[in-house]
Amino acid sequence: MFETPITVTGRVVTDVATRVTAAGDKVANFRILCQERRYDREQETWVDGDRLYMRVTGWRKLAEGLGALEKGDQVVVSGRLKVHEYTAADGTLRAGPEIDARAVGPDLAWHTVIVNRRAWASADQLALVGPTGQPETPEEEVADAA
Amino acid sequence: MFETPITVTGRVVTDVATRVTAAGDKVANFRILCQERRYDREQETWVDGDRLYMRVTGWRKLAEGLGALEKGDQVVVSGRLKVHEYTAADGTLRAGPEIDARAVGPDLAWHTVIVNRRAWASADQLALVGPTGQPETPEEEVADAA
Amino acid sequence: MFETPITVTGRVVTDVATRVTAAGDKVANFRILCQERRYDREQETWVDGDRLYMRVTGWRKLAEGLGALEKGDQVVVSGRLKVHEYTAADGTLRAGPEIDARAVGPDLAWHTVIVNRRAWASADQLALVGPTGQPETPEEEVADAA
Amino acid sequence: MFETPITVTGRVVTDVATRVTAAGDKVANFRILCQERRYDREQETWVDGDRLYMRVTGWRKLAEGLGALEKGDQVVVSGRLKVHEYTAADGTLRAGPEIDARAVGPDLAWHTVIVNRRAWASADQLALVGPTGQPETPEEEVADAA
Repeated sequence: MFETPITVTGRVVTDVATRVTAAGDKVANFRILCQERRYDREQETWVDGDRLYMRVTGWRKLAEGLGALEKGDQVVVSGRLKVHEYTAADGTLRAGPEIDARAVGPDLAWHTVIVNRRAWASADQLALVGPTGQPETPEEEVADAA
Repeated sequence: MFETPITVTGRVVTDVATRVTAAGDKVANFRILCQERRYDREQETWVDGDRLYMRVTGWRKLAEGLGALEKGDQVVVSGRLKVHEYTAADGTLRAGPEIDARAVGPDLAWHTVIVNRRAWASADQLALVGPTGQPETPEEEVADAA
Repeated sequence: MFETPITVTGRVVTDVATRVTAAGDKVANFRILCQERRYDREQETWVDGDRLYMRVTGWRKLAEGLGALEKGDQVVVSGRLKVHEYTAADGTLRAGPEIDARAVGPDLAWHTVIVNRRAWASADQLALVGPTGQPETPEEEVADAA
Repeated sequence: MFETPITVTGRVVTDVATRVTAAGDKVANFRILCQERRYDREQETWVDGDRLYMRVTGWRKLAEGLGALEKGDQVVVSGRLKVHEYTAADGTLRAGPEIDARAVGPDLAWHTVIVNRRAWASADQLALVGPTGQPETPEEEVADAA
């Protein structure tokens, strides 16, 4: 409740770094660049606007899936907004925007993909632990959605 | 300006239907189910909440990329909210929520994927026409943003 | 979890209707018009784009606060997206987009307001029940956030 | 295009500072605290989650309207996400999240308000300049949308 939901679309501008926490959870991180575009009336063409760099974090199953991404990929990222605090090389405390991602996908407006549908089709899925730590039982088949 | 941005995550519950408009533009449609989950304190477990079905529409390059999706896939969809009006089989006028999608991706929290990075790497990209009809010049290489 | 968050800005186009449910909860409804604006390059001016009408619902304390709004007011509404189903005058089943509002305010880009800060400053606030039914204890004073 | 839309609800934690730029535009700033709340299953109660502080900026008519707000007010803010860079007292370069606000309102779930509807009802409105600098002609009266 009172989370700050956010969605960004942009380009992956670092490698995806994956590690395992002391508690045994896999976590992946990368940075994304969201490049605004605006129509310039004098030039009568689209030009670059502001640039927004953000850190993206994904946990557990999502961290595994993020391993498919590479620097340069266009992605869509949805999650909640946080502030990432860290100590810079010069010893000063810095902060920047971060997304605790709930869903990430390669953007089909920029890439074609092959989806591996067997990946999660295992007994593991029955106890799938979502990004926020709550167990998510797989949903039943949808009979009719027309 | 004053668009209504929206992002949904959910399951593709129909086949993806693709057609070409009279103007020669490719357009793809499918329906998505967004299933809320909430923690039930009495049962002490997560239970299903409201269900939200929406129509998703993607244009041009995105319509091509959407061809990779199948019924049952989990996706993240970002775009602007519209109302889709149509005439039902009984002749009555109906309406339902629709997303004019700007970005769509298979959700890496649910699927592993193989990203085809050569797909758009052609002369076509120089005149890439985005979902909203504005030409988008490819952005320059990002050196390092880490 | 897996709610569909949404924010709209637009104009109140009906009176605000308030009623009390059988369970004793106050609920208020109105309709909002979100008018897109886009720059037309041929006319070299801003023109109207799509129109999006939505139903807005607010509960309890929010329902009380909504009593301050009138037809024509510009507002910002944040909540979760739902589909409102109803039976039309001709007996057919209809559906349209609805926001289960968590926060609503008169838009200060369009209106000046006088904020009544004593309104909730009572013992009631200690057990304030939020839009989603969870008790919200008032937050402690923030010492320094500059 | 490719902006990053964002909406936050929270508490104003500074005074609203207003100034006029060299170009003659009024601009207002304040900081907001978004306090997450989550249900703790062991304590069986709602507890505080992460805190997110953001800078909010509003231009022109919105900057004028923001003058009604005071420290402690609960507000809803909608706009686009930016990063605010500044030099700290110790001379180091710092950065933090910022919202370039398009709409801001006192949250009617927390406050009652009196809306001044005559405020913009002047010849000025005919050339109303919106937050992003585009002229917005007032929209025509909406007859009935119920």
